[in-house]
Amino acid sequence: MNTFGHFLRVTTWGESHGRAVGCVIDGFPAGLEVDEEFIQREMERRRPGKKYTTQRKEVDRVEILSGVFEGLTTATPISMVVWNVDADSSAYESLKTVFRPGHADYTYWAKFGVRDWRGGGRASARETAARVAAGAMAKLLLRRYDVKVMGYAKEIAGVSCEVDDAEKAFERAERSPLRMPDERAEKEAEQRLKEAMSEGDSVGGVVEVVAKNVPAGLGEPVFGKLDAYLAYAVMGIPAVKGVEIGAGFEAARKRGSENNDPIVLKDGRIRFATNNAGGILGGISNGEDIVLRAAIKPTPSISKKQRTVDYEKMEEAEISVKGRHDPCIVPRAVPVVEAMVALVLADCMLMQGLIPRSLL
Amino acid sequence: MNTFGHFLRVTTWGESHGRAVGCVIDGFPAGLEVDEEFIQREMERRRPGKKYTTQRKEVDRVEILSGVFEGLTTATPISMVVWNVDADSSAYESLKTVFRPGHADYTYWAKFGVRDWRGGGRASARETAARVAAGAMAKLLLRRYDVKVMGYAKEIAGVSCEVDDAEKAFERAERSPLRMPDERAEKEAEQRLKEAMSEGDSVGGVVEVVAKNVPAGLGEPVFGKLDAYLAYAVMGIPAVKGVEIGAGFEAARKRGSENNDPIVLKDGRIRFATNNAGGILGGISNGEDIVLRAAIKPTPSISKKQRTVDYEKMEEAEISVKGRHDPCIVPRAVPVVEAMVALVLADCMLMQGLIPRSLL
Amino acid sequence: MNTFGHFLRVTTWGESHGRAVGCVIDGFPAGLEVDEEFIQREMERRRPGKKYTTQRKEVDRVEILSGVFEGLTTATPISMVVWNVDADSSAYESLKTVFRPGHADYTYWAKFGVRDWRGGGRASARETAARVAAGAMAKLLLRRYDVKVMGYAKEIAGVSCEVDDAEKAFERAERSPLRMPDERAEKEAEQRLKEAMSEGDSVGGVVEVVAKNVPAGLGEPVFGKLDAYLAYAVMGIPAVKGVEIGAGFEAARKRGSENNDPIVLKDGRIRFATNNAGGILGGISNGEDIVLRAAIKPTPSISKKQRTVDYEKMEEAEISVKGRHDPCIVPRAVPVVEAMVALVLADCMLMQGLIPRSLL
Amino acid sequence: MNTFGHFLRVTTWGESHGRAVGCVIDGFPAGLEVDEEFIQREMERRRPGKKYTTQRKEVDRVEILSGVFEGLTTATPISMVVWNVDADSSAYESLKTVFRPGHADYTYWAKFGVRDWRGGGRASARETAARVAAGAMAKLLLRRYDVKVMGYAKEIAGVSCEVDDAEKAFERAERSPLRMPDERAEKEAEQRLKEAMSEGDSVGGVVEVVAKNVPAGLGEPVFGKLDAYLAYAVMGIPAVKGVEIGAGFEAARKRGSENNDPIVLKDGRIRFATNNAGGILGGISNGEDIVLRAAIKPTPSISKKQRTVDYEKMEEAEISVKGRHDPCIVPRAVPVVEAMVALVLADCMLMQGLIPRSLL
Repeated sequence: MNTFGHFLRVTTWGESHGRAVGCVIDGFPAGLEVDEEFIQREMERRRPGKKYTTQRKEVDRVEILSGVFEGLTTATPISMVVWNVDADSSAYESLKTVFRPGHADYTYWAKFGVRDWRGGGRASARETAARVAAGAMAKLLLRRYDVKVMGYAKEIAGVSCEVDDAEKAFERAERSPLRMPDERAEKEAEQRLKEAMSEGDSVGGVVEVVAKNVPAGLGEPVFGKLDAYLAYAVMGIPAVKGVEIGAGFEAARKRGSENNDPIVLKDGRIRFATNNAGGILGGISNGEDIVLRAAIKPTPSISKKQRTVDYEKMEEAEISVKGRHDPCIVPRAVPVVEAMVALVLADCMLMQGLIPRSLL
Repeated sequence: MNTFGHFLRVTTWGESHGRAVGCVIDGFPAGLEVDEEFIQREMERRRPGKKYTTQRKEVDRVEILSGVFEGLTTATPISMVVWNVDADSSAYESLKTVFRPGHADYTYWAKFGVRDWRGGGRASARETAARVAAGAMAKLLLRRYDVKVMGYAKEIAGVSCEVDDAEKAFERAERSPLRMPDERAEKEAEQRLKEAMSEGDSVGGVVEVVAKNVPAGLGEPVFGKLDAYLAYAVMGIPAVKGVEIGAGFEAARKRGSENNDPIVLKDGRIRFATNNAGGILGGISNGEDIVLRAAIKPTPSISKKQRTVDYEKMEEAEISVKGRHDPCIVPRAVPVVEAMVALVLADCMLMQGLIPRSLL
Repeated sequence: MNTFGHFLRVTTWGESHGRAVGCVIDGFPAGLEVDEEFIQREMERRRPGKKYTTQRKEVDRVEILSGVFEGLTTATPISMVVWNVDADSSAYESLKTVFRPGHADYTYWAKFGVRDWRGGGRASARETAARVAAGAMAKLLLRRYDVKVMGYAKEIAGVSCEVDDAEKAFERAERSPLRMPDERAEKEAEQRLKEAMSEGDSVGGVVEVVAKNVPAGLGEPVFGKLDAYLAYAVMGIPAVKGVEIGAGFEAARKRGSENNDPIVLKDGRIRFATNNAGGILGGISNGEDIVLRAAIKPTPSISKKQRTVDYEKMEEAEISVKGRHDPCIVPRAVPVVEAMVALVLADCMLMQGLIPRSLL
Repeated sequence: MNTFGHFLRVTTWGESHGRAVGCVIDGFPAGLEVDEEFIQREMERRRPGKKYTTQRKEVDRVEILSGVFEGLTTATPISMVVWNVDADSSAYESLKTVFRPGHADYTYWAKFGVRDWRGGGRASARETAARVAAGAMAKLLLRRYDVKVMGYAKEIAGVSCEVDDAEKAFERAERSPLRMPDERAEKEAEQRLKEAMSEGDSVGGVVEVVAKNVPAGLGEPVFGKLDAYLAYAVMGIPAVKGVEIGAGFEAARKRGSENNDPIVLKDGRIRFATNNAGGILGGISNGEDIVLRAAIKPTPSISKKQRTVDYEKMEEAEISVKGRHDPCIVPRAVPVVEAMVALVLADCMLMQGLIPRSLL
């Protein structure tokens, strides 16, 4: 279950404080030129060590060990490694026998009877570095078909952004430390974030991802629907607690006549006048933008005191999680959600035969 | 992609106006006594022909064709059939060449170049009868392990119910035509629904499902997380546009200190003082109730006039969808969401070894 | 595990003496005209009730319950049912508590703790009726791409046929009660079969299947190789104990210089001068005929006395299996092996993009 | 399709002359002590650079990058890397545009339009180093349940060994340069091999693997039968052209009364008096030894002149494959077949619940 995808399959491996994290991409078509700089730029977007993020210093350089020959993919598995450089387990020594609230410490222990307590081990968000590397490959592939996947923080600490145009929002957000597309909202969110930080607390938010130029016909009813697949992909990202498509939960409050997107002809092609459906009808893409939002919970690692249990002594205890943590994971979650969406879309295009097995 | 599940796999088949719908359940353990009455009661909960639902008359009797011998499951595939009795395609004749807005008509046509236009064909919610039949088998299995899956309409037409206790809410909702647990909310929702109906319109809502006595340890990180699997299962139900777990989108507005569930000892066992996590941490169940909500869009079939395209003439057209439709699909969606949750939980318990291959 | 295939997936269900056997085909492309007569002819080739076969009378009429609309496939699941008409469990009553040697009686009991003792239940070769029905659909699809799958009994009771041309061999074999392409061998095999029958015994043989006009490029290294996939498909047929490709076990006795097929140009196309490889190199089809042989063990049901164990009394016992059994299953196994080969080839062509999702 | 297994899944990656080969093992239970020395000994058994093998010098040291913490497996993915040290592509430069007969050169090119021509790239038997590493982990797991997987060369160059006792045969073979258990046969085979070598030619043979103490109940009918799964696993090994179980192709020549294994009581337990079935009935293990044979073709790389095609000039050509090649791959294939058998058995034991998710 560390493998994602049907036709294009990504297997990730590695722990937060182990030697490395990495992935193997299988089913990638032959003949794509690998733009390593692009991959590195994607890694950079998720990388820690910036404002409002953990101060762990990781260069996150991706090494490709297989599957590429003379600059081209060969349709054989692409093995990518990101070495862990700045893992520091000392802060975790004292947490060895207590479960951090809001983390997977207890559940891993309950499931497997053993856990790597250093920095969350496998459950650490560090694993998502491998997803971003794989997602970068998917984006390179989609780029060739003019499909763009763009994300930003739609909301942080309860402050929501107005977004008219996803492309502009994306560009604006890329220059924002909170990855928010709306300056006014950003200011307010920043204020709330600082307040939380000053109290040793954290905040959450909502990531929105829009995919443009997605062809109609993607998705496999009745269980492998495009929206079901996206929900699976995105809900499996650490800290995500909700996923919605198009109008999402708001659709539940609308009338049918409001929510149904009128079908029209534009330039002789069948299109939709509105996009409450978020680009998906009956689990199949309809040619409009795919619009998806993910609810990101506040970072569970906080220095504020919390109640927990010490399982060696089997007694209640107090905990204050030190170490280097993101007070808000939302900005760094954006490229991860994008990566998963890109992987889903590339996989569906391959399944639908819209991307061939070989580009040559 | 008409198969759902890993260890416990359900394949559904059939079209709304074809001869039957049905399913094959594979991987079901040997030795379970099959309570056919229970299965039939579950079918009855989803069955059309009642107040505020389509008036199509279907007895929805399940026939078991294989996999059961002398009343016990044998671990071989269980084939179940529900014959279509009251399909009436006449209302659809006039819609043959126009796409119904909010339906899968356009996308099936775009994907496959052909579609069964009678009542939505495969994309019809009639397919969910097969899911409920399979889900009933999963519930029978879970019942043996004291796991209960209970759902109700949390919200209809924007009117939300107060719920303290899921078990009582479930019981109350079972006696409600809107399957709402809160009488006051029900009255108001009923009023809004009637208004919509009088205008040839429809409404949506939110289904909440709670699973009790779920053991800790279910779910397969990092991609096959329990919440990801549930999101996949539930987002794939027709009309669902959003899924959230525990505090869900509200979690995005909380502080870490509010959202983290304190870990405590109750009767010497590790438990959680609150349940914002909805019973899942790091993608693995933590022993608390699983709490999930699904946003259900308003029924797309409305008699109100809508804009669409006639694809034979390739020109814009108006459409008014006649036929027998649910003005609000939420009450009938409840057992479907429950069925998918039950299938996920049974599958995870099998994968985790908590349910053996043979109960004998 | 009652599902076969990756892209084109077949799920079979049903027991020998249950109500029916059937299958659900998922992933079948849209737009194929369904030739029901062809399907029925394929069923006829496997049907019991002929010379040298069990005298069980089954018309084996296939009913299609879904996935076909106005004569065309719609890319939705195709559900097919074959009702059991002439099941007679009385002969099995006395065998309820003894394991038949050479059968799956003991292993099903050991695995599941319960078994349907009537006619072998799920382990009966009757299940292969569903495979032949599904295989017929695959053949219809392949026919459109001029791919032909032809089988015959290469050997029965140790008597082997000379085969020069697979197409002629197939045609000759279709008129032979033993499905043997070589008259001289057939006479001798018939003699040996009659001898065995007169002693209440049975014989085995070898089925050879040749697939013509298979495009190069099918198969997925390194684990999903075409030969591995074929071996999986064919070894899973009841009574098969060995599978070989091309020169097979004989290749193990050759020199490299003899076994390597020289690569040549024929009419400007790259071809192979010989076909020891059986059309597969490195797990990928090379454009030559696929040649596969399966070893079929002698029918385990024999009236000759055998030693066994009565597991109720837990003591040794003697058994003489009465009932209506094939003294040699090889002729009826031929269409089953063909069906599995056809399913594999159709699946691989879909995966490789050589057959599109929609033929329209 | 570079992933093998259902519950225990192995993904291999890497090319012969790339930077490394490796694998990721997913689904491995928690709590197993990792005996790195054992893994290394297994690598040593497959390692090149010995008598009658290629003279490529590879230390084949396995590095474990994840999934192990404080010496114990953690149920998270185990990433293993074997760096390529002595790859020398110079001998392949001249073969860039010609297909080597008997190799996958043509088929990879036909399938993907591009190929890594250095040493066979992904199709090289070097990939099996990763399989042996993964297989070693499976063996460690099986060892805990007393299941032993032992292989040897049953036949080389047409010379067959007598084997009475698999355990003794295995031990004897481990000391033999040809990995043959029978000294007389070994001498003769060695003679024939030398003759072939002197003519720039190669020979093939048959590997036999026996698994002892395999519990009854493994295998998933009707498609995922244990024998089908083994056939899939073993036929997918480079150079394998045939697989048989128990009596295999010989069973096809026997009478039912000879081939059926009598069922008897030994020490109060149900057992089989003979083992023509090779430990598998109806696709499920019966508690007897699993016996499997694989036909290995002669090494296709020979210095003897062969006919081929130069695809740049698109004209016929002659080829003499220089470089460092095994004149007979059989001895080195033995641990690879064992590895695949071990992976299958461990996977089936996990699926059957005979190995738990955590050993703690």
